[in-house]
Amino acid sequence: MDNKPLTKAASSATRVWHLQDIKRALRDVDVLAAMADAFISYSAGKAVVPPVGELLFEEPPGDAHIKYGYVRGDRWFVIKVATGFYRNPQRGLPSNSGLMLVFDAATGTPHAVLLDQGYLTNIRTAAAGAFAAKLLAPDKVSCIGIIGSGVQARLQLQMLTHITCCRKVRIYARDSEKARRYAREMSAQGYAVRVEKSPAAVAAAANLIVTTTAACEPLLFADDIKPGTHITAVGSDTPPKNEIDPGVLNKAAIVAVDSLPQSAARGEVFHAVDAGAIAAGSIVELGTLALQAQKARLSDRQITIADLTGVATQDIEICKAVLARLAPDTAREPSNGY
Amino acid sequence: MDNKPLTKAASSATRVWHLQDIKRALRDVDVLAAMADAFISYSAGKAVVPPVGELLFEEPPGDAHIKYGYVRGDRWFVIKVATGFYRNPQRGLPSNSGLMLVFDAATGTPHAVLLDQGYLTNIRTAAAGAFAAKLLAPDKVSCIGIIGSGVQARLQLQMLTHITCCRKVRIYARDSEKARRYAREMSAQGYAVRVEKSPAAVAAAANLIVTTTAACEPLLFADDIKPGTHITAVGSDTPPKNEIDPGVLNKAAIVAVDSLPQSAARGEVFHAVDAGAIAAGSIVELGTLALQAQKARLSDRQITIADLTGVATQDIEICKAVLARLAPDTAREPSNGY
Repeated sequence: MDNKPLTKAASSATRVWHLQDIKRALRDVDVLAAMADAFISYSAGKAVVPPVGELLFEEPPGDAHIKYGYVRGDRWFVIKVATGFYRNPQRGLPSNSGLMLVFDAATGTPHAVLLDQGYLTNIRTAAAGAFAAKLLAPDKVSCIGIIGSGVQARLQLQMLTHITCCRKVRIYARDSEKARRYAREMSAQGYAVRVEKSPAAVAAAANLIVTTTAACEPLLFADDIKPGTHITAVGSDTPPKNEIDPGVLNKAAIVAVDSLPQSAARGEVFHAVDAGAIAAGSIVELGTLALQAQKARLSDRQITIADLTGVATQDIEICKAVLARLAPDTAREPSNGY
Repeated sequence: MDNKPLTKAASSATRVWHLQDIKRALRDVDVLAAMADAFISYSAGKAVVPPVGELLFEEPPGDAHIKYGYVRGDRWFVIKVATGFYRNPQRGLPSNSGLMLVFDAATGTPHAVLLDQGYLTNIRTAAAGAFAAKLLAPDKVSCIGIIGSGVQARLQLQMLTHITCCRKVRIYARDSEKARRYAREMSAQGYAVRVEKSPAAVAAAANLIVTTTAACEPLLFADDIKPGTHITAVGSDTPPKNEIDPGVLNKAAIVAVDSLPQSAARGEVFHAVDAGAIAAGSIVELGTLALQAQKARLSDRQITIADLTGVATQDIEICKAVLARLAPDTAREPSNGY
């Protein structure tokens, strides 16, 4: 009895969606548009986003982060849980997991549970990188540089196909075997990928660079970066992490972040301000740039940087967009009055 | 295809439990023992419990609270979402809802979603009241006094059957029609219930009182309370709420709380300390009392008070206890390797 969907539905109107449902729905979602909404509503002050909840574990080391909030006037509010346990791969599990919860903002009733296993967080993070590149990358992307060889190294590159036709890629990863595997995989997907021996060699070839590592020591320095290069840094999401030397930010014409309050405590900008390389007042939010123009870069000589730490409105908007695709289905669900 | 449990399981090993499953499992759960574990692990410093996450809504007015954490050494960590939207009854919905999430503390993998619609929060709150009474109520309970006529007014009385054979009840509620309905319902359940015209009249008859209102002005005063009376206050969970006059706490031999840090910011104790009626140092946690003795009350003349604002370990322990009953079922669920 309990395993029959009807019984389940009768016991609660909360819809539960699984990863394959979510992946199917995502095919029809414009994730870059969702990220534009996310950053603009955030920077325009239309979102209610409390501080991120954090739960830390010692043995094995891990963390859970709770990002939640709503956009004023929305029908839903969203609570996203993201976990990271970095010894999981040793037991054949992905490091990251999580889920998203959607509640009715008028009644507090749980509307949907998206059991995405962290997939939507990966996608929205990659889409945010592409959105930043859309605003800041040079008009002519000659070569894409990727630092790192993990999930984001793959997804960021794939998402960039939305904003550039460039398929020429240079990659550096500390683990050369992982770098070669990355090259094989991405080449099979139609990219011309070459493995480089250093981040500097990547920067020498590329004018659109995405750093996706968990490094705590800078990988890119001012002298490495060519004029006209845009760098998106997505790896640094906690205070100790640092991928880019403050000297690079000092040299940049535009330093953009997803959230000014968050960048004051973590990310590349935090380290650069801490080092006195840039003034906190010179930093701008992506949402503010997007409100001003489709393209924020002013010349093909400028160095620009987008430093992303992740904000709840990204989770809210991708959740809303996926739910809108899944919604027609909801009509077929028996209701218990909720 | 998607509606078949097998397909769902294959897409995610996260088990989803619905209200009827949870109610069935609760029949075999010793909720008082679970609350004993909750308060003892909390007061013994064995729990990792970050500050409560809070999301507020203006139109319609409502709130969502996120309580989360884990007990060191446990297999699971728990995230509980509780919502309160107080205009819901106008549209035929209960004011409170919510759900509980259980994650593997070794991998961060979502293990189970308990779609309890807020039921477990109601039960653990009532069980906490009974646990407080077990520690502090007089040996001979002559009459139970209930202030309020809502869900907790019912559940607290029902839960007290675990610690006293007294079925004599006096109730006061601001809405006399609701008070009469309460009397009818509880009488049908075997209680001898009389409706009183004032909280003072309840206190004149009862030596075990539970206050369950959302009052922001005191309902009980020092002169109302008979020697040997125990009062459990469960209504006041936000700073403005206040059910008991500071004079009562001043007169009490024992003032116990679930959480000293929380009682410094909300609840009856907060108001009494604020008014200078009691010293913060004179307050003790229920878990500390339980560690010392089965029974904390020293004489049948003492007035004792337990002021409960609700802590995450209550959610963690009831969730663990329910899951332990649901668990055998899990073995039948196909796994995707998680």
